[in-house]
Amino acid sequence: SMLDYNVLGGKLNRGLAVVESYKLLKAGSEPSEEEEFLACILGWGIEWLQAYFLILDDIMDNSQTRRGKPCWYRLPKVGLIAINDGLVLRSQISRIFKRYFHGKPYYVDLLDLFNEVDFKTTSGELLDQITTSEGQKDLSKYTVDVYRRIVEYKTAYYSFYLPVGCALLLSGGSLDDYVQVKHILVEMGIYFQIQDDYLDCFGDPEVMGKIGTDIEDFKCSWLFVQALVRVDERQKDILFENYGKSDPACVAKVKALYKELNLEAVFSEYEREIYEKLISDIEAQPNEAVQAVLKSFLHKIYRRMK
Amino acid sequence: SMLDYNVLGGKLNRGLAVVESYKLLKAGSEPSEEEEFLACILGWGIEWLQAYFLILDDIMDNSQTRRGKPCWYRLPKVGLIAINDGLVLRSQISRIFKRYFHGKPYYVDLLDLFNEVDFKTTSGELLDQITTSEGQKDLSKYTVDVYRRIVEYKTAYYSFYLPVGCALLLSGGSLDDYVQVKHILVEMGIYFQIQDDYLDCFGDPEVMGKIGTDIEDFKCSWLFVQALVRVDERQKDILFENYGKSDPACVAKVKALYKELNLEAVFSEYEREIYEKLISDIEAQPNEAVQAVLKSFLHKIYRRMK
Repeated sequence: SMLDYNVLGGKLNRGLAVVESYKLLKAGSEPSEEEEFLACILGWGIEWLQAYFLILDDIMDNSQTRRGKPCWYRLPKVGLIAINDGLVLRSQISRIFKRYFHGKPYYVDLLDLFNEVDFKTTSGELLDQITTSEGQKDLSKYTVDVYRRIVEYKTAYYSFYLPVGCALLLSGGSLDDYVQVKHILVEMGIYFQIQDDYLDCFGDPEVMGKIGTDIEDFKCSWLFVQALVRVDERQKDILFENYGKSDPACVAKVKALYKELNLEAVFSEYEREIYEKLISDIEAQPNEAVQAVLKSFLHKIYRRMK
Repeated sequence: SMLDYNVLGGKLNRGLAVVESYKLLKAGSEPSEEEEFLACILGWGIEWLQAYFLILDDIMDNSQTRRGKPCWYRLPKVGLIAINDGLVLRSQISRIFKRYFHGKPYYVDLLDLFNEVDFKTTSGELLDQITTSEGQKDLSKYTVDVYRRIVEYKTAYYSFYLPVGCALLLSGGSLDDYVQVKHILVEMGIYFQIQDDYLDCFGDPEVMGKIGTDIEDFKCSWLFVQALVRVDERQKDILFENYGKSDPACVAKVKALYKELNLEAVFSEYEREIYEKLISDIEAQPNEAVQAVLKSFLHKIYRRMK
């Protein structure tokens, strides 16, 4: 019941990305049934890892809903045992990997990879918690650099680097040989989160299937940090007075300011530039199959509306 | 600050046991400075693992104090970020081990060992939470078998098996060759927890440095499960009516019943029997250095008063 409630219900993008990347890395030759099975195990490993993060983040953020249902810890039969359920998910990943990969030449690299990404994500959550707690007292703590660091650690490693890292290991690669690939994926992860923040305010709720609440929730959002480097004194007062309030009039004032500051154009310009930079970095990669993997990721998110 | 508050302040028994066991396994030949240093790293690894469990267990149990101080999550500046601090501690163990043990022949076994023990302990906490939640509605759910299972998983593996497992790996052993040693240590861990439960009620608070509250706290204690198999109908009513209440009169009635049922003698008899069994199992071990390790553990806890 705990597994079904928390692991399922998402889009499975990260898990499916392992299988797809692995197929692209094999460059034409169809993977055997066993190879595909192992890629699926790794994919599920990432989905379980994400479920573990989400269960615990929701408790820390006092969140209400997740994927259209009440957060797991909010169910009356669950409560704070949800914390232990998170740990169960994490330790089950190690057990599953031991069962299927023990003895494989890349087994230890696989454990190291998940441990590293777990550490990075946990550090990102720590940064986020500290920043949000300070930001609620003094919004000037929300800066472009801080934003970038939180997103890199909290989201980019596990969402973008981890699926490709898994696929590379499964296809016999050594992660030390792909430092540049890691940088590209982390950059793409940051781009993905910036889109998320942009869509939270400017996306179409009909298309997205949800209504954004970053302004109400005091989030250290890309829009906020971009606004902060562009405001004059008058605009800054408006921003600080109305941010983090649930009153719709306050939210509307923040959104109006974002428009006044032309943040839609700022975002479009960022998106154009990062796309060009990523394409150029990808095409500098010596391995064509790796290029294909990276381009596949990029084209899935470029100009996304949801 | 988080590390000092949560990792320090205990007796460090588990961590020190790695170093001591390792020295006994080397049987006379003094370990080099580097070997002793590595044993210390493993010892600290266990202490960090324990800190991670304790931080999170305290939140789930809504505890007030730990080691004579407020629980970490109760500090105003901390709150539920404590959950993430627990995860930081856990993921730092992996980082530290990677730094000092990557490339050693036993590195992967070390990761597997910590992953296995993490899983066992988390499963024990799950069992404990489920049992306590059911027991609060129906005390007859607290049985001898359930008790044993909780204690085996929640306490014995990480407190007794893990230190020796670390020392065995460091001295070049393969854990598969020590299945019997594992059984003995788990049995000793259960014995240790039974003593804990006994002392909670019958120990001298002056000697222990704390006052037990297992009866008030509805704990699935060894004394309770032993009482439950010995009560008649009248005594059972007294037990069920007074257990889990903070009123000192209720606590006194439960204690009087424990005495009426002669649980002090039952405990003495258990202690005598388990000691004999453990000694005999230990002396059946082929390796004398391993015998010395196990006897050292046993004699540290046999007839302890605190």
